[in-house]
Amino acid sequence: MYFASDNSAPAHPKIMESLQRVNEGYTGGYGGDGGTNHVRDMIREVFEAPDAAVYLVTTGTAANALALATLVEPWQTVFCHPTSHIEEDECGAPEFFTNGAKLTLIEGANGKIDADAFRSHAKITGQLGVHNIQRGALSLTNVTEVGTIYTLDEIRTLTIIAKEFGIATHLDGARFANAMVALGCTPAEMTWKSGIDAVSFGGTKNGCMGVEAVVLFDPDKAWEFELRRKRGGHLMSKYRYLSAQMEAYLTDGLWIKLAKHANAMGDLLATGIKDVKGAKFNHPQQANMLFCGWPRSGHALAQAAGAMYYAWPEAEHPETGPDDELLTARLVTSWSTTPQDVARFLELIAG
Amino acid sequence: MYFASDNSAPAHPKIMESLQRVNEGYTGGYGGDGGTNHVRDMIREVFEAPDAAVYLVTTGTAANALALATLVEPWQTVFCHPTSHIEEDECGAPEFFTNGAKLTLIEGANGKIDADAFRSHAKITGQLGVHNIQRGALSLTNVTEVGTIYTLDEIRTLTIIAKEFGIATHLDGARFANAMVALGCTPAEMTWKSGIDAVSFGGTKNGCMGVEAVVLFDPDKAWEFELRRKRGGHLMSKYRYLSAQMEAYLTDGLWIKLAKHANAMGDLLATGIKDVKGAKFNHPQQANMLFCGWPRSGHALAQAAGAMYYAWPEAEHPETGPDDELLTARLVTSWSTTPQDVARFLELIAG
Amino acid sequence: MYFASDNSAPAHPKIMESLQRVNEGYTGGYGGDGGTNHVRDMIREVFEAPDAAVYLVTTGTAANALALATLVEPWQTVFCHPTSHIEEDECGAPEFFTNGAKLTLIEGANGKIDADAFRSHAKITGQLGVHNIQRGALSLTNVTEVGTIYTLDEIRTLTIIAKEFGIATHLDGARFANAMVALGCTPAEMTWKSGIDAVSFGGTKNGCMGVEAVVLFDPDKAWEFELRRKRGGHLMSKYRYLSAQMEAYLTDGLWIKLAKHANAMGDLLATGIKDVKGAKFNHPQQANMLFCGWPRSGHALAQAAGAMYYAWPEAEHPETGPDDELLTARLVTSWSTTPQDVARFLELIAG
Amino acid sequence: MYFASDNSAPAHPKIMESLQRVNEGYTGGYGGDGGTNHVRDMIREVFEAPDAAVYLVTTGTAANALALATLVEPWQTVFCHPTSHIEEDECGAPEFFTNGAKLTLIEGANGKIDADAFRSHAKITGQLGVHNIQRGALSLTNVTEVGTIYTLDEIRTLTIIAKEFGIATHLDGARFANAMVALGCTPAEMTWKSGIDAVSFGGTKNGCMGVEAVVLFDPDKAWEFELRRKRGGHLMSKYRYLSAQMEAYLTDGLWIKLAKHANAMGDLLATGIKDVKGAKFNHPQQANMLFCGWPRSGHALAQAAGAMYYAWPEAEHPETGPDDELLTARLVTSWSTTPQDVARFLELIAG
Repeated sequence: MYFASDNSAPAHPKIMESLQRVNEGYTGGYGGDGGTNHVRDMIREVFEAPDAAVYLVTTGTAANALALATLVEPWQTVFCHPTSHIEEDECGAPEFFTNGAKLTLIEGANGKIDADAFRSHAKITGQLGVHNIQRGALSLTNVTEVGTIYTLDEIRTLTIIAKEFGIATHLDGARFANAMVALGCTPAEMTWKSGIDAVSFGGTKNGCMGVEAVVLFDPDKAWEFELRRKRGGHLMSKYRYLSAQMEAYLTDGLWIKLAKHANAMGDLLATGIKDVKGAKFNHPQQANMLFCGWPRSGHALAQAAGAMYYAWPEAEHPETGPDDELLTARLVTSWSTTPQDVARFLELIAG
Repeated sequence: MYFASDNSAPAHPKIMESLQRVNEGYTGGYGGDGGTNHVRDMIREVFEAPDAAVYLVTTGTAANALALATLVEPWQTVFCHPTSHIEEDECGAPEFFTNGAKLTLIEGANGKIDADAFRSHAKITGQLGVHNIQRGALSLTNVTEVGTIYTLDEIRTLTIIAKEFGIATHLDGARFANAMVALGCTPAEMTWKSGIDAVSFGGTKNGCMGVEAVVLFDPDKAWEFELRRKRGGHLMSKYRYLSAQMEAYLTDGLWIKLAKHANAMGDLLATGIKDVKGAKFNHPQQANMLFCGWPRSGHALAQAAGAMYYAWPEAEHPETGPDDELLTARLVTSWSTTPQDVARFLELIAG
Repeated sequence: MYFASDNSAPAHPKIMESLQRVNEGYTGGYGGDGGTNHVRDMIREVFEAPDAAVYLVTTGTAANALALATLVEPWQTVFCHPTSHIEEDECGAPEFFTNGAKLTLIEGANGKIDADAFRSHAKITGQLGVHNIQRGALSLTNVTEVGTIYTLDEIRTLTIIAKEFGIATHLDGARFANAMVALGCTPAEMTWKSGIDAVSFGGTKNGCMGVEAVVLFDPDKAWEFELRRKRGGHLMSKYRYLSAQMEAYLTDGLWIKLAKHANAMGDLLATGIKDVKGAKFNHPQQANMLFCGWPRSGHALAQAAGAMYYAWPEAEHPETGPDDELLTARLVTSWSTTPQDVARFLELIAG
Repeated sequence: MYFASDNSAPAHPKIMESLQRVNEGYTGGYGGDGGTNHVRDMIREVFEAPDAAVYLVTTGTAANALALATLVEPWQTVFCHPTSHIEEDECGAPEFFTNGAKLTLIEGANGKIDADAFRSHAKITGQLGVHNIQRGALSLTNVTEVGTIYTLDEIRTLTIIAKEFGIATHLDGARFANAMVALGCTPAEMTWKSGIDAVSFGGTKNGCMGVEAVVLFDPDKAWEFELRRKRGGHLMSKYRYLSAQMEAYLTDGLWIKLAKHANAMGDLLATGIKDVKGAKFNHPQQANMLFCGWPRSGHALAQAAGAMYYAWPEAEHPETGPDDELLTARLVTSWSTTPQDVARFLELIAG
C-alpha cells in the first residue's frame, strides 16, 4: 500500500531489459551512438514533429530548468501557478539556470492558471519599461501538482494569450502520459497543436529508472540548449543508458499502457474514497494523484497496517484529535500499484 | 580494438545485476532509501573518513562543478592545470556553478601542476586586495588528462602550499581507481592523508553506468552541497539506481580489479608500442591512458582494420603525408579491453 | 509644479559646494582618502553603531541588491511586499546579485507586510527540506512605496518574527530621512534598535546628486560586501565625490531639514486635497508621497498648467470620460518643492 | 609630485561648472532629460556613428562588464591580454555580468595581444564542440595597461582575425583619449573603422568626476544593454549629472586638450628619465603611463620629498639594498600634472 509518490515505484521490467540489451560492446559517448539517434527520431514521430530538437536528461528539474533557461532571458519572468513544481519543489533551479529570472505566480482553481488572471499579469508585466522584469515564458503543468488536468481548450486559451504578448510556452510534463491518457488526445494535440513551444516529457515517474526528454518544437535554440545542458553537467557520457530507457518506454505503447494503469488505479481509489463516510476531495481526481481527506480513524488504521502516503499539508495534521476529524492526504498511484493494494487500503480507511 | 575512451565501454555485468536486484518494490526517493545510506557508509569506510559527507551524482562534470562551487566563492579562483577537465572539457560548468569564479591555469610538465609555479601564482593572487580575484581552491586531476600520475609526494607538496595560503583542495578523480592502483596506495592516502579536502570519485569510466561520488572530508558544508545539488537538477528521484551501481562497484573490490585490468592493458599497449619502429611517447604511460605517436603507415593499417581512437591533437593530423610521418594519438584502455585486442592492434601499427 | 518624483529634483546647493570643496589636489582612489574615512565615521555616529561596516554606492538599486546578496544565499528567499522597489522597480537586480534567490511576496495593507502573513510564510518556507527555497531575509521599505510609514512597533513585530526563524533583516531606506522625520525617532531606533541588520540609507532622493550608503550593523561580512561591490562595478575610483555628498548631507542636520521640508509639503498637499470635492486617498499620507484621486476635470486643469505627476496606475486612466470621474495619481514632494507650487496646484485641481 | 594614478586627480573645473549649470529645476530621471539626449548625440557625432547605441555609467568596470555581457554568451570566452584590466583589476566583474564566461589570456609583448597567438587560440577554441567553451569576444585595451599603444594597423590585424572566427570586438578605452592623441587619429578610426564593435569610452581618468560611455556601433542589442544596466544597478536616477560631465568633456575638444597635456607630461617624464644614470624602461613610453626603473637612491630621495607612485611590481621592492639597485615603478601623469612637478621629480630621482 504505497501511495507516497510515483517516483518511489521501481522501473518497469521492459526498461531493465532494454538497459541489459544495450550493455554490450563499445559505443560513442555523449549521445553519439546509433541508439540515441534512433530514440530521438522515435520521439519526433510520437510528437509528429520532424524538426523538433530532442534531448534526454536524468531529472525533471533539469528538464524544466534547462528548457526555461533556453526560453527566457535573465531579466524576464516565467508565469506559473503557485503550486507548480518549478516554484515549489526545485530549490530555485529555474532561477539558477536562467541566471535570476523571476517566477510570477498566477492563481487559479484546482492548480490551473486562471486565464483572466494571466492576461492581467501579462498586460502589466514590463509596462514601466527598463525598471521592470519583462515578459518571458508561461509554464503549465499537466497533470497539475494537485492532480487535475488542463483540457486542450484550457491550454489553448492560455497559449493564445501568451502569443498575444510574445510569451513563450512550456509544458512541465513530469506526468505527461497520465495527462494525455486522461485527455484521450495525441502528444501533438496536447503540445504544439495547442500552442506549446517546449515540453519536459517525463519518463521517470511512469516506469523508467531516470530519464526525461526535452522537446523544443522550434529547433532554433537547439545548439544553445546543448551548451546549457553540458554546462549544467547534464550531458551523460554513457548516454546509451538514457536512450535505452526511453526506447523501451516508447516501444509498443508501453508508456501509454503504464499511464492507463496508473490512472485506472487512481479512479479506483477515488471511487472507493467517495464512499468513505466523511471523506472529502480537495480537488477533482482526474488522473493518478488524489488530494482528499477522510476521518482520522481511517488514517490510523491504514498507517498501522503500513500504508505509506503524505499528509497534505503536513502542518495541518496535529498528532492527536477526535476520531472523526477530517485529515487530508496526497495519494499517488503508479504503473505498479495493484488493485489488491487499493482494495485493502480502501477497506482500512473506511474503518 | 576500441581505444577512444573508457566511457565508451559498457557497464560491468555486476553493476547491471545490482540494478536488477534493487528494482523491486517501493523505496523512498531522493536518497531516502536504506541502500543509499548503506552505500554512503561504504564510501566512508573505503576512505577511512567516518565523518565525511558523501553524495552521488550522474556525471563527472556535475561532481566537479558542485564540489568546486561548495569550496570557492564567486570572487575566487580555482588553480588548475591548462589540460584539466574543468578547464578544457566542461563548457564552463565550474564558472556556471560557482557564479563566475575564475580558473587560473598553472603550467607543469606531463599534465601536472608545477609546485613553484603554483606557489608563485598563489602568492600574487589577490595581492591588490578588492581589485583582484581572490584565492579559492586548488584542483588536481589524478590520473591527469595526459595519462600521468601525481605521486603522493607531489600531491602533498601542492596541498601544503595550498594550506599555507588558505586555499581549499579538490581532487578530480574521474579515474580515481586507475591512479590509486598505479600508486599502490589507499584511498585515504591519495586524498585526505595527502591534504585533499574534497574528491570527485569516479565510477562511470571504470565500469559503472553513470555514477560519481562527491566526498567532502569536512562535512561543514554538507547542507550547502545538498542545496546546490538539488538546485542544479542533480538530485535523482529514483536514487536507488545510483546507489546500486556504487554498491556493486565497491563490493569485493570490484572497482580495484577493474582498474588493475585497465592499467594492465595500458601497460601492455605501452610495452608493445615502445617496440614499434619510430614510435614516441609524449608523456610517460602510467595508467590506462597513452599519448604517443607512431608512423602514419601504422595508423592507416589500424584504422583500416576498424581500430578506434582519437588523433591527438586532431589539428596536427594532416590527411596525407609520408608513410614514416609521426602522428600522435590518445589511446585509452578500460575494464573491458582484451589482451587480444591489444595484441591485434600492436601487430597492425607495427605494420 | 513638479510632483513626478523626488529624484527629478536637483541637488541641494550645499551638496554642490561640498563637491567643489573636495575638487582640489590628489587623493587616493577607491575610498582611500581621508574624507571617505571621515564620512564613514559620521555615518557610524549617526547610527550609534561604532562597529558597523559602511559603504557608499551611486544608486539605490545597487545598495539594495548588494546588501541583499550579502545577506542571503542563492537558494534562499527574500520576503518582501508586492509593491516593494526590489520586486517592482529593479528589473531583477536582487535576483542577479544574489545569483537567483527568490522574492516571496507578502501582502499587507497600505504597502506594509502583514505580520501574520509573514509568520505563516516564514513557517512553511523550506519545510520540505532540500526541495524548497530556504528562508533568507526580510526586506522592509520605509517610507513604503505607497507613501506610508512602518511604526517602530510594526518594524519590531516583524523583525522579532524574522529572528525567530533565523531570517536576516534589511531596510530599504531610499526615503530613510522622510520616514525617520515622520516617526520622530533616531536612526538607531528605526534600524538596529528595532532589529534591522542592514540598511540602504538613501541620499539621492533627499537632495544629493547620487549617493546611497549601505550600513551593515554586523561587520562580519564587510569584506564579502567589498568584493561584491567591486565585482558589481560599484566601487567608484574618484570616491571622494561620493563622500563629499554624504558629508554635506549629514552636516548640521541638512538631511533632516530637507526631509522635514519635503514631508511638510506632503502634509500641505494632503490637507488641501482632502478639501477637494470628490477627492479620495488610496493610502494615508504620512510623509512626502501621496496616492490619491480627484475628479478628471481637476487633472485636466493641472496638466494644462504644466503640472507633472504620474497617473497611478496608468492603465486606469482612460483618455476620455466624465468630468467627475475619479482618477488617481502619485504625487511626490521633495526638498525643493515650494509652498507656492503646492498652493497653485491645489487651486488648479480644485477646479 | 603625484604619479600614482590618473584617477587620483581632481575633476577639471569645466566639468564642475557643467554640473553646477544643470543643477537647476526638475528634469525627468533615468536619462529622460533633454541634456542626456543631447550628449548621446554628441557622442554619436564624435564617433561618426549616427546609429550607435550610447549609454553612460559611473565606472570603467561597469562599462567593460556590461559591454562584454552584451557581446558574449555565458558559455563563451573573451580573448584578452594577461595584463588587461578585465582580467587583473575587476575582481571578476566580467565573469559576474556574463554569468560565468571565461577569459582566455593571450600573451604578447608590451601589453599587446600577439596576432599569431590570437589566431592560434581562436582556432582551437570550441573545436571539440559542446565540451568546450565557445568563441565570444576579443577585448583590446588602448592605452594598454603597460602604457603602450596599439597602432591602427595592429588593431585592424586583430579584428580581422576576430571577424574571420565570428568573434565580437571590444575596446577598453579607459584611457581612450590618451591613445587617440598618441595615434593622431579620429575616434572612428580607432574604433569601428578598425573593426571594433563596442567601446568603453573613458571620461573619469581624463578629468571627469565619474563617467564612462559605452558605445555599441551595432544597436541591435541596445535594449538588452539597457536591461542589463538597470539590473546591474547602473542606471542613475539623477542621470543629468552624468550627462553634464560628458557634455563638458566633449565641448570645445576639452577631452583632447586634457589628454594632450597628460601625454606631454608623460613625454617630459620619459625624456628626463632616459637621462637618469642607470634608468631602464620596461616598456616604451607612448602616452601618459610609464613603467621604468632607476636606482634605489633616486627612489629614496623622491619619496622623502613626498613623491607618490607605485612600486611595480611591489613584490620586487625589497626594503633595503644597495644604492644603485634598479627598482621599477609605474608613473602616471594626468590632465593636472604640472611641468614643475615633473621637473622637480626628475631632479630628485637623478640624485
